[in-house]
Amino acid sequence: MSPPRVLGMFLCAALPALALAAEGMWPPEALPPAETLRGMGLSLDPAQLANPQAAPLGAIVSVGGGCSGSFVSADGLLVTNHHCVSSLLQANSDAQQNRARDGHLAKTRAEELPGGPTARVYVVEGIEDVTAKVHGPAKKAKTDLARFEAADKAQKQLIAACEATAGRRCEVVADDHGRAFRLITYREHKDVRVVYAPPESVGSYGGEIDNWMWPRHAGDFALLRVYVGPEGQLDAGPNNVPYRPPHHLKVSADGVKPGDFVMAAGYPGSTERYGRFADQKFQAEVELPARAALLEEMLTVLREESARDAEGAARLASPIDGLANYQKYVTGLMDNLAASPILAQREAEAKAIAAWAAAEPSRAAHVAALAELERISAQERAERAAGEVMWLVFSSDLLTSAHTSLRAVTERTKPDLKRDQGYQDRDQDDLIDGLYGVDDSLWIPAERRLVELGIRKNAALPEAERIAPLHSFVEAHGGVEATLALLYTNPALVNAAARKALFDSPLKKLQASEDPWVQLALALETWLAPRRDRDEAIAGARLRLEPLYMEAARAVRASAFYPDANNTLRWTFGAVKGYSPADGVFFAPQTTVPGVVAKAGPAPFDAPARLLTAASREASSRWVDPALGHVPVDFLTDLDTTGGNSGSATLNHKGELVGLVFDGNYESMSADWIFDPALTRTIHVDVRYLLWTLEEVEGAASLVKELGF
Amino acid sequence: MSPPRVLGMFLCAALPALALAAEGMWPPEALPPAETLRGMGLSLDPAQLANPQAAPLGAIVSVGGGCSGSFVSADGLLVTNHHCVSSLLQANSDAQQNRARDGHLAKTRAEELPGGPTARVYVVEGIEDVTAKVHGPAKKAKTDLARFEAADKAQKQLIAACEATAGRRCEVVADDHGRAFRLITYREHKDVRVVYAPPESVGSYGGEIDNWMWPRHAGDFALLRVYVGPEGQLDAGPNNVPYRPPHHLKVSADGVKPGDFVMAAGYPGSTERYGRFADQKFQAEVELPARAALLEEMLTVLREESARDAEGAARLASPIDGLANYQKYVTGLMDNLAASPILAQREAEAKAIAAWAAAEPSRAAHVAALAELERISAQERAERAAGEVMWLVFSSDLLTSAHTSLRAVTERTKPDLKRDQGYQDRDQDDLIDGLYGVDDSLWIPAERRLVELGIRKNAALPEAERIAPLHSFVEAHGGVEATLALLYTNPALVNAAARKALFDSPLKKLQASEDPWVQLALALETWLAPRRDRDEAIAGARLRLEPLYMEAARAVRASAFYPDANNTLRWTFGAVKGYSPADGVFFAPQTTVPGVVAKAGPAPFDAPARLLTAASREASSRWVDPALGHVPVDFLTDLDTTGGNSGSATLNHKGELVGLVFDGNYESMSADWIFDPALTRTIHVDVRYLLWTLEEVEGAASLVKELGF
Repeated sequence: MSPPRVLGMFLCAALPALALAAEGMWPPEALPPAETLRGMGLSLDPAQLANPQAAPLGAIVSVGGGCSGSFVSADGLLVTNHHCVSSLLQANSDAQQNRARDGHLAKTRAEELPGGPTARVYVVEGIEDVTAKVHGPAKKAKTDLARFEAADKAQKQLIAACEATAGRRCEVVADDHGRAFRLITYREHKDVRVVYAPPESVGSYGGEIDNWMWPRHAGDFALLRVYVGPEGQLDAGPNNVPYRPPHHLKVSADGVKPGDFVMAAGYPGSTERYGRFADQKFQAEVELPARAALLEEMLTVLREESARDAEGAARLASPIDGLANYQKYVTGLMDNLAASPILAQREAEAKAIAAWAAAEPSRAAHVAALAELERISAQERAERAAGEVMWLVFSSDLLTSAHTSLRAVTERTKPDLKRDQGYQDRDQDDLIDGLYGVDDSLWIPAERRLVELGIRKNAALPEAERIAPLHSFVEAHGGVEATLALLYTNPALVNAAARKALFDSPLKKLQASEDPWVQLALALETWLAPRRDRDEAIAGARLRLEPLYMEAARAVRASAFYPDANNTLRWTFGAVKGYSPADGVFFAPQTTVPGVVAKAGPAPFDAPARLLTAASREASSRWVDPALGHVPVDFLTDLDTTGGNSGSATLNHKGELVGLVFDGNYESMSADWIFDPALTRTIHVDVRYLLWTLEEVEGAASLVKELGF
Repeated sequence: MSPPRVLGMFLCAALPALALAAEGMWPPEALPPAETLRGMGLSLDPAQLANPQAAPLGAIVSVGGGCSGSFVSADGLLVTNHHCVSSLLQANSDAQQNRARDGHLAKTRAEELPGGPTARVYVVEGIEDVTAKVHGPAKKAKTDLARFEAADKAQKQLIAACEATAGRRCEVVADDHGRAFRLITYREHKDVRVVYAPPESVGSYGGEIDNWMWPRHAGDFALLRVYVGPEGQLDAGPNNVPYRPPHHLKVSADGVKPGDFVMAAGYPGSTERYGRFADQKFQAEVELPARAALLEEMLTVLREESARDAEGAARLASPIDGLANYQKYVTGLMDNLAASPILAQREAEAKAIAAWAAAEPSRAAHVAALAELERISAQERAERAAGEVMWLVFSSDLLTSAHTSLRAVTERTKPDLKRDQGYQDRDQDDLIDGLYGVDDSLWIPAERRLVELGIRKNAALPEAERIAPLHSFVEAHGGVEATLALLYTNPALVNAAARKALFDSPLKKLQASEDPWVQLALALETWLAPRRDRDEAIAGARLRLEPLYMEAARAVRASAFYPDANNTLRWTFGAVKGYSPADGVFFAPQTTVPGVVAKAGPAPFDAPARLLTAASREASSRWVDPALGHVPVDFLTDLDTTGGNSGSATLNHKGELVGLVFDGNYESMSADWIFDPALTRTIHVDVRYLLWTLEEVEGAASLVKELGF
């Protein structure tokens, strides 16, 4: 089965928060006022932060699409999190060498390991406001569906024109709930190599136990290097040489101390600070508890199957990690909500929004928009249970492969610009990578039990909520047991070539397939396709409605405005800062190497012997923080970050690298809804822990030198 | 079965510590230098602290022999811990009214509840150095046994002479491992009444979970009142009136803040800061792990039997609590030792002691003493396993009753001054109370299983370590099953009258008894009696040896000297102070009412509704600490305390009551061996939490007024 996509599952609301300096994920084009930044402690010219083509922003990259990183040497050395390079390490692991577990240190450039076909580093080349180009055609449409189609076509055309230049990847992003659109052009580097990754017992020291937790002692760092062809080609090649980026960050060993100004630049994925109260209330009261229960069921199945078989354990390790992390998030979010006044604050805000809209006859459109958005939400909420069933059956890698092929083959019958986004020519490589990637996670005994769970839950739903074609498919094949026997008796799609052949089939041939998985995909598509069409109409409606909602919401929100995160380059500004997680307890904002030693023990606290040896003499190292008397490890700030910020460069007031973002604290799980200045914290690894580890634990003097020391 | 006697089980060693101000339990006659106390912040004349007949020491009392307390009004109102009055509340509980659980508030003096026959408050009337009177006769003795007997006789004579005055209880205490002896005279008040005790859900809020833990939110306070007869008689009587103590403490609502000087006076039970390394090493390596395993076995038995039967659950509640607390202590002490360099420090000190002794020919006696003490210890260590067996079989209330009667009846054949201490005329009431008290804890199914465990463990021991008469008794009665059947078939001693009759029997009649428990007690006595005789000789030897050991230990110890705790009145001086329990975590030294609310939930966090209601408006109460913005609950200090200090008055620099000692932190479990200034902390309840609870939760305005507000 495939790891869950956590962030996509939460598309909800936000909270009224005070206009405090630390809150906000700021696009380079719309930073806080210069005097605010100077007042917080920035000594660089604030204007310098706005230009993605100049330092420091020019050194900031997106790693693999889901993480952040930054160039730290003139020879294309790049720093990010250990947990952001796991797929690159996996691609360099085999039965003999488990680099995901043991890490890798390239003693020479020749030992720098190619990151494999999925390795990517994206660097912004340009950002263009295309709001008029998207909204212009949309505004002329007579129906919501036509409005969606006009906007969609405009976006696809913009992307196609942009990507006509080789080596570019372009995207149109909807900002501020679709009020504005930007075309972002990236340079797409494909030759990305692993220079240094610590062992898992350093990089994710404390594992699932310490995940989301403070005090933390993880060395969640890794070094990559970008290579290019002799003429600057971006694809991987045997004659490639280290890339010389136009900008790289200076690494500072001056360190941070409590209260110090810091800022970070990276790619936060998604927040819902302007979501609607009704949606958040539904999540808190219905969706999260149901999700927690479902996750417990799923994890029980996967852990049982993992314990039964060593190969199963290997295949299921990543899905189990992903679901366990998600479960910790769901239960943590529920804890946070139970312990905080978030929902009451949101309810009060919802009333204020309604009152604002009702206050003037000129705001009749706002009143209508609020009502229409609520009808849309109610419709979406009614399909929650069906959504869970779909999640369970699509945890099957076989069904996902069959359905992806069906969708790809169907869309391929249309001209490229008419196809659904995600199925255009530009997407084919990713789709094929996905089909082959199934080999890493496919484990029949586990997915069979989850599919069975999905089928049985579907059957138990009231008829109106049930996915009828799934139910009919099972009935038509003689019930649950017989259907599972049919699906899982020598399924052809366990073979990667068979999956690829299906993907390459003509539509007619695919439709005529007797493979039960293809037939199931076709059956489910009769339920999914009309909903996609409906959702396109809804998307068109949202183009009308969301700007009105946002206008009302912003009118009653006290804080300075910044748009919700949408996986684009953002700045966040704040300070090194501890917090009080409970009455009588204060979390200091810095941890040290003796804390690593104090936690050492069985996995996930199995610190390497060479690290413990180095730790016994750390107090005399040149990386010691004079105030702490020890080499620092991790630190806390009130920077405003979320998933996707992993690996983000943390900079001091001069724009020098002092650390890397790698996690949020337990109390930050609700920060995607509301930023709480008292409790929301970002966890960073101190760059001095990287330097100490390189020098004292790994003996990697040349890398320390390349980092400027 | 009877609750375990925890403190008696640990008779071990001590540790080298720096001479820091907070360390030390100081007898009134031997306080730190006046300039030291003034330098720490004391504004009273230091000389005033030395006089037990003047304020503030004149207001300090011993409660029930195991706790501390203090007079806080001119009408004999006395404050101590909630957990120090549980037996008084138990004596006022029945099937209708569970005051141990629900607490009690006397709205008028008529509602003040008599504490029952075991209630006692002791007030020091005099302290006399009797070293010469004890050591003088002892020094003339030719053998160690004779030395013991001479010292023992001198002590009994001193006590008898002292107690010839009515209303007095006197004791001779060995200070500094027997180097010195003091005769302490107490006024013994027997009319002690319960004025106010909060419900268990306030007094021990957090129960076993929070026990030994910080942050803490327990309202561990209670108010008693001492009554006397119209002519000052100390016994309980119907015409008694509130006692007017010569001294009582002023209660201060000025409160404490971090760094404030504080001091406490009370009755610390026992420490072993000058114990021997070899004994501590044996404890750490052998005794504690074995004890932890045994406690787990015992608790499993008791919890199973408790779950099986409601009456059993009631009888076993207190023993289970006691053993669970002891288990937490044993495992916590092991944790502390594993995490600290205590044993290494002690080993270094042991070497220094040996080197000191060997350094001069004039110290030959010291060298010999060290060797002889080690031989004695080795002999005691060899009986560790037998000691565990004895502990298990004597967890039987039936065996304990039979054996106590056997001992009492045997000793009664001698003149009073020749009897063993504990079996003299002055001890008879306590012995009888014990025989009747069996009714509270006796639970046959549980004690039968523990006795069986003891018998089987004994059989499994190597013959040299085995308790031979126990083994023979079982063999002679046809094996384990048959012996248990014999012992537990209608045992006569389940009846209190039968126990009392046995206690009152002539020795010949008792020796001829056919009761199998009496026969078992007689059999075990053939093993115990010679060991008691041997131990008396050892005690005589220690009178020779320990002063030499202490001289050597004090010569190499850097810290200012104070004697180990021995259940006598002591001062301790320090400050309000948090600590860091782990890298990145700081425990603030104060908790507040919102912290009580944040923890509220299922038991043991079932805060009463009336408290939660009051908490919702606490921020406007007159008991708010201005710096905290809330009503304070508990606080931490680096005062040096141990079991027995519970209920000790915590005083500010002016000698005014600001709180009560009630626990140590988790890291303090090893403090009976070594005081660690960085980690050893005492937990206090803030007197403002008592005042707030009385005024805002209980509506007890008259008590608040009596306390001076």
